[in-house]
This record gives sequence, C-alpha cells and structure tokens, in this order.
Amino acid sequence: MASFPEPIESALKELSRLPGVGKKSAMRILYHLLKGGSGTIEGLENALRLLKENIEKCPLCRGYKEKTAECPICCDPRRDLGLLCVVESTQDLHLIDSTSAFNGSYFVLHGLLSPFKGIGPEALGLEELRDRLDPGMLREVIIATPYTAEGEATSSFILSMIEGTGIKASRIGMGIPIGSDLSFVDPETLSRALSGRREVK
Amino acid sequence: MASFPEPIESALKELSRLPGVGKKSAMRILYHLLKGGSGTIEGLENALRLLKENIEKCPLCRGYKEKTAECPICCDPRRDLGLLCVVESTQDLHLIDSTSAFNGSYFVLHGLLSPFKGIGPEALGLEELRDRLDPGMLREVIIATPYTAEGEATSSFILSMIEGTGIKASRIGMGIPIGSDLSFVDPETLSRALSGRREVK
Repeated sequence: MASFPEPIESALKELSRLPGVGKKSAMRILYHLLKGGSGTIEGLENALRLLKENIEKCPLCRGYKEKTAECPICCDPRRDLGLLCVVESTQDLHLIDSTSAFNGSYFVLHGLLSPFKGIGPEALGLEELRDRLDPGMLREVIIATPYTAEGEATSSFILSMIEGTGIKASRIGMGIPIGSDLSFVDPETLSRALSGRREVK
Repeated sequence: MASFPEPIESALKELSRLPGVGKKSAMRILYHLLKGGSGTIEGLENALRLLKENIEKCPLCRGYKEKTAECPICCDPRRDLGLLCVVESTQDLHLIDSTSAFNGSYFVLHGLLSPFKGIGPEALGLEELRDRLDPGMLREVIIATPYTAEGEATSSFILSMIEGTGIKASRIGMGIPIGSDLSFVDPETLSRALSGRREVK
C-alpha cells in the first residue's frame, strides 16, 4: 500500500547503480545496513569518505594511490623500469602484479578505445603514454588489454604509437579466453599468458 | 608485489561485509566507485548519511519510517487494527503489504529466536508485542515467520503468548508456490500442502 520513505528510496537507487547489484540485492543490502544500525552504516560511510579524500591517480602509472604516500607500484626499487605494461584498469594492474610474473612498471588506461561510447585516445591518457616511449628508458612495452574488440583496437593504436621508436612491443600471451575479462582468469593462466607473451612487430 | 593503499583496503573490507557481496564483487564495486570519481562516491555517501540520520523504527509496528514523518504503515486510515501480522523483517512487511491480500497492522521482530546466535525474546521486542495482545483491540494475530527451525521456534513462542487471551492465532499458509513444479518442492512441504488441502467446491 505505502511506498518506502524517501531516504530508503534514494539509498535503494544508489545501491542499484553499483555493478552486480540488482533491485533485490540492493534491498538485501539496505536492510542489512538498517538492521546493523548507525555503526554499520557509519563504517561504510567512513570508508567511502576516506576513499574520496585520500585516493588519487599516480601521475606516473595512473593507478590509484594514497595522496599522502608515494605510489607503492612506481616507487618499488625492485621494478625494472625498462619494461612497461599497459593495462585497462588498476584492477588489472593488481591482478598482474599479484602473479609475480612481471616486475616492470605499469600504465593504466582507465578504459579502452571505443568510438561507440565516445572514448578516444585523450580519455585514456595516450599522450602521456607517448611521452613515456623513450627508447633510452624503455626496452619493451607489453600491451595487456583484453582480447575483445575494444581491447584489440586499443592495442593496435598503441602499437602504431610504438612503431619506429625502436622499443620492442609485445602483446600479453594468448591463453586468456577471447571475450573474457582479466578478472575471470585464474592467476596461473595469467602468469603463463605473461611469460608466453609474443612480439607483434 | 605491493598491497593496496589503506583507504582501498578498508573500503574493500566494508564492501565485502554486505550480504551477497564477495571479495570479487567488492573489488568491482570499488573500482566502479573510483572510476566514477568523487561524484559517484558522494551519491552513495549522501544516501547513507540520510539513511542514518532520517530513518528510525516506528514505535508501534517497529518497521522503518522517516523521523520527520508519521509511519506510512501505521497511520494509513484504511488499516484494520483488529488484525496484526507478525513478520521477521521490514522487508517481509513490504513484501506482504505489496500483495494487497492483507490490510491489517504489523509487528516487525527484526530477527528470529535463536539460542545458537544468542537471540532471545527481548531482542525481538516480544514484550512490546505482549503489550499489544489486548482482546479489546485485536481479533487475530497472523504469524508470518518463515517455515525454518528458527521461524517455527519463534512462532511457537508467540503462540504461547497469545494462548488464553481469547485472540485468534494463525500461521501463514504453507504449500506449493504458484508457478512451481511439484518436483521443486521438498517432500515435507508437499506432505504439509496435502494435509492442509482446502475444499474447492
């Protein structure tokens, strides 16, 4: 008969926007939060505030880092700065980094080229990537975008940027199922795909 | 190699606590929030704040209501106050209310009796329920707790409270859900559905 109070309606709307959260899961989450009381809600609220206030993109790898700290990826002294791995997202960066099959540096695109979604080279920071293509610094660029239409288009674009620089270009090894997201791949497959990477040009 | 920055770790922890959200979904939600920037995070943050500040339990039905407004359930003038439906959660209250098969009042337990989890009658507000068992006001109490061990234990406890008051007590019907195949129903439900058969002519 009656509809939900406004604050509940708007919380449901916000929760349903999250990836993988439908109307029913939003409802479950909402009642879980309400049942836990202000403590439970505050825990999530604080975590979100800290995220908003303290996380920024690293100017070098473009991955997420704490504002008050050095980038744990870029400032790791064990990194081989002659190797650069280009990934779609920070999530992919961490997935690859957790395999220990790669100890070079990273560049996060935060997306893939998509004329359909209006995502062009500027949105992916490809000019910044171009600035890093210094053959005096880099030996090899490993392109680890997924084997999807958008991932391949992005890869081709980056390959054309590398062409003629004298830097070796490679593509993450096939072994990743076509059409699949990197996050669905187990670490073993991922590490084999890295060691089995092939030179494309 | 490197672990996540602290604010990301704590956000992951908070998100994984939500029902139905595992480690992987928490990660997806987190990167969705980070990618959307402060606007996306703020939307959820504000919704949570409003929830915390403006929602309280109605002193009568114990469902959630806006602090500044009357309870839309209890203050609906079309309610039959002689009927009281006892439910496990506000979610169940809204599920039952959306069927329009019931127009009485409600009492939300916010849980079920569970010696294992240390949930006793006080935690469910059963003393408040006892105060409402006035035969001058109530004709019937419908117990709509689920047919689980805890739901049945809670139902028995409430039935013993009603006993001797002269108020009619009933339990929500058990049977085969509409649209379901008999093969999906467990034998216990099936045998109860048979013994609880109703004459159609």
